[in-house]
Amino acid sequence: MARIPRMSETFSEPAAPQMQDVQSGPSAVALAIDRVGVKGLKLPLAVRDRAGGRQHTVAAVDLTVDLPAEFKGTHMSRFVEALGHWQGDLDYATCKNLLADLCERLQATSAHARFAFPYFVTRAAPVSGIEGPMHFDCTLDGELAGDRLIFTLRVEVPVMTVCPCSKAISDEGAHSQRAVVRIACRARGFVWIEELVEVAEQAASSRVYSLLKREDEKFVTETSFANPCFVEDVVRAAAKKLLSDPRITWFRVEVESQESIHNHAASASIELPRRP
Amino acid sequence: MARIPRMSETFSEPAAPQMQDVQSGPSAVALAIDRVGVKGLKLPLAVRDRAGGRQHTVAAVDLTVDLPAEFKGTHMSRFVEALGHWQGDLDYATCKNLLADLCERLQATSAHARFAFPYFVTRAAPVSGIEGPMHFDCTLDGELAGDRLIFTLRVEVPVMTVCPCSKAISDEGAHSQRAVVRIACRARGFVWIEELVEVAEQAASSRVYSLLKREDEKFVTETSFANPCFVEDVVRAAAKKLLSDPRITWFRVEVESQESIHNHAASASIELPRRP
Amino acid sequence: MARIPRMSETFSEPAAPQMQDVQSGPSAVALAIDRVGVKGLKLPLAVRDRAGGRQHTVAAVDLTVDLPAEFKGTHMSRFVEALGHWQGDLDYATCKNLLADLCERLQATSAHARFAFPYFVTRAAPVSGIEGPMHFDCTLDGELAGDRLIFTLRVEVPVMTVCPCSKAISDEGAHSQRAVVRIACRARGFVWIEELVEVAEQAASSRVYSLLKREDEKFVTETSFANPCFVEDVVRAAAKKLLSDPRITWFRVEVESQESIHNHAASASIELPRRP
Amino acid sequence: MARIPRMSETFSEPAAPQMQDVQSGPSAVALAIDRVGVKGLKLPLAVRDRAGGRQHTVAAVDLTVDLPAEFKGTHMSRFVEALGHWQGDLDYATCKNLLADLCERLQATSAHARFAFPYFVTRAAPVSGIEGPMHFDCTLDGELAGDRLIFTLRVEVPVMTVCPCSKAISDEGAHSQRAVVRIACRARGFVWIEELVEVAEQAASSRVYSLLKREDEKFVTETSFANPCFVEDVVRAAAKKLLSDPRITWFRVEVESQESIHNHAASASIELPRRP
Repeated sequence: MARIPRMSETFSEPAAPQMQDVQSGPSAVALAIDRVGVKGLKLPLAVRDRAGGRQHTVAAVDLTVDLPAEFKGTHMSRFVEALGHWQGDLDYATCKNLLADLCERLQATSAHARFAFPYFVTRAAPVSGIEGPMHFDCTLDGELAGDRLIFTLRVEVPVMTVCPCSKAISDEGAHSQRAVVRIACRARGFVWIEELVEVAEQAASSRVYSLLKREDEKFVTETSFANPCFVEDVVRAAAKKLLSDPRITWFRVEVESQESIHNHAASASIELPRRP
Repeated sequence: MARIPRMSETFSEPAAPQMQDVQSGPSAVALAIDRVGVKGLKLPLAVRDRAGGRQHTVAAVDLTVDLPAEFKGTHMSRFVEALGHWQGDLDYATCKNLLADLCERLQATSAHARFAFPYFVTRAAPVSGIEGPMHFDCTLDGELAGDRLIFTLRVEVPVMTVCPCSKAISDEGAHSQRAVVRIACRARGFVWIEELVEVAEQAASSRVYSLLKREDEKFVTETSFANPCFVEDVVRAAAKKLLSDPRITWFRVEVESQESIHNHAASASIELPRRP
Repeated sequence: MARIPRMSETFSEPAAPQMQDVQSGPSAVALAIDRVGVKGLKLPLAVRDRAGGRQHTVAAVDLTVDLPAEFKGTHMSRFVEALGHWQGDLDYATCKNLLADLCERLQATSAHARFAFPYFVTRAAPVSGIEGPMHFDCTLDGELAGDRLIFTLRVEVPVMTVCPCSKAISDEGAHSQRAVVRIACRARGFVWIEELVEVAEQAASSRVYSLLKREDEKFVTETSFANPCFVEDVVRAAAKKLLSDPRITWFRVEVESQESIHNHAASASIELPRRP
Repeated sequence: MARIPRMSETFSEPAAPQMQDVQSGPSAVALAIDRVGVKGLKLPLAVRDRAGGRQHTVAAVDLTVDLPAEFKGTHMSRFVEALGHWQGDLDYATCKNLLADLCERLQATSAHARFAFPYFVTRAAPVSGIEGPMHFDCTLDGELAGDRLIFTLRVEVPVMTVCPCSKAISDEGAHSQRAVVRIACRARGFVWIEELVEVAEQAASSRVYSLLKREDEKFVTETSFANPCFVEDVVRAAAKKLLSDPRITWFRVEVESQESIHNHAASASIELPRRP
């Protein structure tokens, strides 16, 4: 099968010129592919951290590019090579560098990178002040298409909700439960993961902690019972806060509450501006 | 707190009129909620089946409606009641009935229902003809917004891929692996799950089976090696077939191959028409 | 359907006598294999049901046998054939039939079958009496080794726990959450899944429901707050009940509570008699 | 940081002496609890690394102790405190320190700690020598009961298997797939994760890689086809190797192969010495 010349010969596979380059052959079906690449690579890396400057974590990484209709296949090994050559901590700037490198190595017009990682914050208990680690599952999506660069940051924030209906109608108590607030957003300028965590936590009955002494547990219980909220209240309060932030250009908030009186979840979501 | 009258008094909660109806109070934040409801209900049901008329399976169900800016909360129990009153096997028509009932019970203008279930097909081995059960994970999404009714059917189809590059450059053999083809589509008119399964399987090196005798294994091995394909080939072949079907108005195909020489997956996707 | 040839017929596959039977060759390493077989088969089936006689569900099935040191391989297709020939609803008796058939088809001295399936119970709300479906994830493990037949039944039961410490020290309220009680047991004689569900639910602050009206929610909240319990209390109460049942010969109870004030779980387990 | 008061100080929490200590009250059911504690804590840590000395990773941590029949509850916050005070990289020695500290803080006679974490190894491609990261999911379990200290190390190793039967009976090719070898072992003396990885990989048709150029892919394909193996062969070869290691006092090996011609897995396991 004849070899199809590339935009730049520097991207040909130098090490084994005698071997057939099947991927570079013509495609049997002339359809462009939106995204092609590798999924589920894992690697240790460091991310920017508001409190400490940087922190070590571990990320699952997906990397894709577009493929024009005329090429049979992409070169999967180049994604891993790009990741290997990638320098520095994970950040908007370094993610952009990786996307640009992917476009160049793969002769693509668009590239997408997703990093999913736990992010750690040291949290002090509300009364005793004792500190413990909290983690938040985060995802950073970067997309480069020509000159258009879009980052989407996602954070999952566990919170506590106390049911207002249960509290209003019961002689004693009210059911509470752990809920998760998932915020995805796009922004002009830098947004800290910690800022989205705060938006989510302030919208709920209480934040959650890894370490609470008895006096802290009393505080959390009483505070949460003073702030009962439905998933509807949480999603609206978070959305209102995100709407008021001039940096945020798009967001989606989802709240999923593991109702302690049911074996299913209650859920609510708002996306603004809503995509069709 | 004063009770807010509804569109129809028949939907008021009759059994406990003296209790406070917190959900019906005014909302503190005047933002409409896109989707609010219940997630993760499980129930046994029957679905239409091309071969046998109907089959029993088990579904995980999510049900949501929209909530206007002025209402504090939805009534979560009514979702489960609607499901309890719902009659018949799962089908486009019965799903529409459920959506209309949700809109009415919840005084909503839009409703969404998702049913995720395994679907079973009896498959004959290619040479011996011995039959065994195959399952395909499916999702039916129904959305009703005013008069607009949209169904999205998703099917996950496990297939086999043999690597064309590995075959071309190696003196013997070629690596093969299990891949999964995920097709989501919207259509005018009825589409069988079996039709999407066929689209996915015909695009790959071979279909997979639950029961193969030795003569079948020989057939599958030789057939698949005669049809090597990259994830790019599979996604394009499936997309081409879906494009040529006049019933299909939108689709997305993703192929994810658990590369047997790597510890990560290769992936490719096409969506047409592409949503922004 | 004709009988499959057995050991006396020297392991050959009758349908393709000219093909090499690699599996029946000698093993390079003379070590017996404890369990070899297939995992992750899915099939629809029916199970016995205390309320309704039988119910349809879907099971994930693992089937294995032992393999003596001298044989290179088992015959994987025979597991699926055994499942295909298996008759009737899932029950201790039919599971035993399957195990005996596996031993015979595979010329094995021991066989193991695992069926994992959701089991559905219709549950009435405590005050309104309105009914809704509840599901419990169950596993039935059957092992046949010579004349020794052991069944292990596992049930996962979601429950509600109200924290006694939080209640005692707070001016108002107490944190509650969903917890899961996992009971595994071996018994002389028949044990209904419903019986294990009751053991788990009676040990907790409250059972959970799929459908609750406001008067029911009031009842569940007040009942649960009148019965606060730690995971330690739940595991002990369930263990005590299982100990007092003359049919139960071994059990393990685990309680895992998704603490609503933390982002981790609290857990407790008791196994009796304890295995080393 | 000041020492936390112990049993002599009658279990009271010093910071809030006026609050009720519900956990320290008597238990209603006089049954000892095997394990009680916290599950699912996540934290960043460093582990010993054969190539580089140490590496950063992220672990999910479960910590439990026993609870005598007479005490109502354990003190959950002390587990998180113990983790907070724990010093150094994860290792057998530091894990033992943590277990001893848990016994002391919780006045327990036994303690159990589980760390689950991805472990990273830099791997060179077999021909080109280009390096890429590989990760292996590992679990370290430490149990301290009186003077008895047991560590169990688990490693999951993805490998490639080529089917010997398919190769023997087919005119061309043979199906291959990714399989996972799970080794759990107890040992006298230090065992590197890398050693267990090597045992697993040498038992399979080929190891897998994150980065392969074409000449490497040719090598891997040809090597794997020269070494076809069933799951039975893999599990035996790994077991034989572990048996011959004088340090290993107990092991269990499981191989699960995602058969590329089926939609289920083939599996085999050996445990030696076998526990009843």
